[in-house]
Amino acid sequence: MEFKQSLKAKSNYIERLLSEYMPKVEGYQRTIMDAMNYSLKAGGKRLRPILTLEACNIVGGNEADAIPFAVAIEMIHTYSLIHDDLPALDNDNLRRGKPTNHVVFGDDMAILAGDALLNYAFEIMLSNSIDKENPKKYLRAINEIAKSSGIYGMIGGQVVDVQSENKVISKEKLDYIHLNKTAAIIIGCMRAGAIIGDATEDELEKITKYGKNIGLSFQIVDDILDIVGDEAKLGKKVGSDIENHKSTYPSLLGIEKSKEIANDLIKEAKNNIKDLQNNSSFLEGLANYIIDREY
Amino acid sequence: MEFKQSLKAKSNYIERLLSEYMPKVEGYQRTIMDAMNYSLKAGGKRLRPILTLEACNIVGGNEADAIPFAVAIEMIHTYSLIHDDLPALDNDNLRRGKPTNHVVFGDDMAILAGDALLNYAFEIMLSNSIDKENPKKYLRAINEIAKSSGIYGMIGGQVVDVQSENKVISKEKLDYIHLNKTAAIIIGCMRAGAIIGDATEDELEKITKYGKNIGLSFQIVDDILDIVGDEAKLGKKVGSDIENHKSTYPSLLGIEKSKEIANDLIKEAKNNIKDLQNNSSFLEGLANYIIDREY
Repeated sequence: MEFKQSLKAKSNYIERLLSEYMPKVEGYQRTIMDAMNYSLKAGGKRLRPILTLEACNIVGGNEADAIPFAVAIEMIHTYSLIHDDLPALDNDNLRRGKPTNHVVFGDDMAILAGDALLNYAFEIMLSNSIDKENPKKYLRAINEIAKSSGIYGMIGGQVVDVQSENKVISKEKLDYIHLNKTAAIIIGCMRAGAIIGDATEDELEKITKYGKNIGLSFQIVDDILDIVGDEAKLGKKVGSDIENHKSTYPSLLGIEKSKEIANDLIKEAKNNIKDLQNNSSFLEGLANYIIDREY
Repeated sequence: MEFKQSLKAKSNYIERLLSEYMPKVEGYQRTIMDAMNYSLKAGGKRLRPILTLEACNIVGGNEADAIPFAVAIEMIHTYSLIHDDLPALDNDNLRRGKPTNHVVFGDDMAILAGDALLNYAFEIMLSNSIDKENPKKYLRAINEIAKSSGIYGMIGGQVVDVQSENKVISKEKLDYIHLNKTAAIIIGCMRAGAIIGDATEDELEKITKYGKNIGLSFQIVDDILDIVGDEAKLGKKVGSDIENHKSTYPSLLGIEKSKEIANDLIKEAKNNIKDLQNNSSFLEGLANYIIDREY
């Protein structure tokens, strides 16, 4: 219970930060700001920005310096959802219980709103880094985000995911998808936060492992919830993976084996961070939450 | 004739640079590299990367340092064309005489290839800036590119352009579209090149004005060519603006008046750069070429 309150408080804090950093709705182009903000405001657990700030904290850094990175990673995550939901991709009309971006703003504006959020994420990171005392550190952190969201990260995973629909794929390929589509930006945003917090190489490595383990576990649990989850709690329809004949951990290995693997990954994740300098109870709690969650 | 040879040589140089910086086609996700490279290799005048390097040169900078920015701006330009051509936007099947990206790779991969090119542009700029002696300068330059391609630049212009189809719009709004959709990334890439070349504030201002003037003129000439141009030379069908009842300089002011304005902008552009430190004959020639071109 204590953890859930703490998560809720952190989510609320991220909501406030997002509101601050969202573009003002003004000018001839105001529709695009509306479309960007619509999806940014659509809720969600805000795990990635929370992890960015936590990674900075846990190595003894100044959380405030990592805020633009936290906001940026949520914008990148949000753009990926908007484009994923398009008719040309997953064709989803509902996300977090609300009509998806293209349903409200049209396919054209949804494509542009996605583009705009990706671009704006970089604008925020860059403009907030220029006047810092250690610009090289900031360049490194932005680079982590960029690598993790591109073709050697999130987009790469997304491409293979799209191409694997209606196919039985190898576990190796499935692991590639999970590592890139889901874990990469979790790793990337945590590394960015840790770099801003002046992490040592050893700390950075531990945080990278933690991010990888919770990211992989997160995706497995997501796929389990798509089978056994509650539509009302999830805010989206379940059963779509089976409908699309999608290869997942549950479909390849069964639900029980998948749960076991997800649990092992979480155990490892908690191990990865147990001796980092600052109190890691929140990151421990978060790891537990990832396998205990119902949505 | 001399200018055209010089332009051709510079275009060829940019082609070689692009090949160097393109992602290798490998891994599970190789389709996305194929799709990115297909559009990057589709030709075009390569004006933006040429301008990036020239802006660095003209202030006495080291052109080699600006190369990642030149490559990146062409990737950003290319992504914007891929997304523009999608059925949900302009629905164009032909670009530079070749099938557009979504015709070859499908709408899903074309959306992801556009996303990937935008992201990769930042990856290239960032990874090539981290180890430079003056990281702040590089952050500034990347920030110029980011601002110019987002909602306060190219995407902003694109949004208003899309919303203005089949409408008579004010000249003020049309100027907003031209300034943002077309001129902004020309200004942005030149400012980035000039910043890398250690331009003074005065030089930066002159280059900004030049970029704005040739950018605005470029769009007016484009719209004139859509009426009087030769499909074979242009590599795309003409008459689409009239078909789509699109407001343009020619439709609002007539062809002759539009030519006059385009000419005046070019005169001003040449004026803007005439006393910069290095030889500006190429940028002068380029300004002339923009109004003399037939494609």
